[in-house]
Amino acid sequence: MEYSRDELIEVVSSQMPAKRWQHTQGVMETAVKLAKQYGADPVKADLAAILHDVAKYWPIEKLRGILTDHQLSNDLLLYNKQLWHAEVGAFVASHDFGIHDMEVLDAIRYHTSGRIGMTLLDKVVCLADYIEPGRDFPGVNNIRELANDSLEEALIAGLDSTISLLVSRKQIIFPLTVFARNDLIKKLEANS
Amino acid sequence: MEYSRDELIEVVSSQMPAKRWQHTQGVMETAVKLAKQYGADPVKADLAAILHDVAKYWPIEKLRGILTDHQLSNDLLLYNKQLWHAEVGAFVASHDFGIHDMEVLDAIRYHTSGRIGMTLLDKVVCLADYIEPGRDFPGVNNIRELANDSLEEALIAGLDSTISLLVSRKQIIFPLTVFARNDLIKKLEANS
Repeated sequence: MEYSRDELIEVVSSQMPAKRWQHTQGVMETAVKLAKQYGADPVKADLAAILHDVAKYWPIEKLRGILTDHQLSNDLLLYNKQLWHAEVGAFVASHDFGIHDMEVLDAIRYHTSGRIGMTLLDKVVCLADYIEPGRDFPGVNNIRELANDSLEEALIAGLDSTISLLVSRKQIIFPLTVFARNDLIKKLEANS
Repeated sequence: MEYSRDELIEVVSSQMPAKRWQHTQGVMETAVKLAKQYGADPVKADLAAILHDVAKYWPIEKLRGILTDHQLSNDLLLYNKQLWHAEVGAFVASHDFGIHDMEVLDAIRYHTSGRIGMTLLDKVVCLADYIEPGRDFPGVNNIRELANDSLEEALIAGLDSTISLLVSRKQIIFPLTVFARNDLIKKLEANS
């Protein structure tokens, strides 16, 4: 890694409003806690959390440019712009910050959408993003309670809250999110 | 067609309990009404409605056997058994009842799931299945009201009621249903 943790925090926090950095700090704290609780690597969870929203406040055209120029996930360009920062975040983490740990990069890449076959670290970062202390949306306390007992059940409830929100708003649902929650449900059922 | 309408009704109604045949009669009535309202062919709507649930009460193993033996949609075997009767219904309509009108067969095939690029007849039959007079589920009256003004908005609300039900039950969501409602929303937005 070319950057120390402190340097990384300094550069990343400068890319977003103070309020969003506060959210990132919540995700860092929660991701590390979940990692320890469920046996993921807390150092990787911390690193992915620091970087997960690095591109969240970049101009849309800059995000589109990076996705296009580097031929990242063309599919994504057809879907909600809210999803773009995750893929770009993974690119930036690798390209600008010299992070080459695929587990960390994937946890950044899939922190909003989820994916089929989520790793332990993917789950930890994605769930932390839903339930960090600053989050306040209908059902968040239920997801926090589920997180005490089951990473997967909490994550399914989180992804389902996204699907329900998009249904209620008549907005496009990113198919990968449906595939991710279906996959988690199938695996839970297979293990029960 | 090898069967008259009356013969078809006799054979199809004998495949299900009286209550389900009553539902089918509701779908026939509503599908014909919607077809006239939105410019689909009422004769085709009636025919697809008569046949749409022909295999609904067939034993699961018979449905599985037909899907497997005739290599119909392998994908479907991985998903909820509630979806199987639609694909089998289209097969039976063609194979046993000599119906070869692809529009009618597709309206039967996709009446539960929807699909990307739904035809006018697909939409009419799928929506009629949601709102026929015998249906009673949370939100059905809202969908009936939407159907007065927009086939597509009513159908999106219908598909979304299915997605919401599956979310609330933590059951697998058939991806085609999400693709179908996303596609309808995209086209409504493009036309507005």
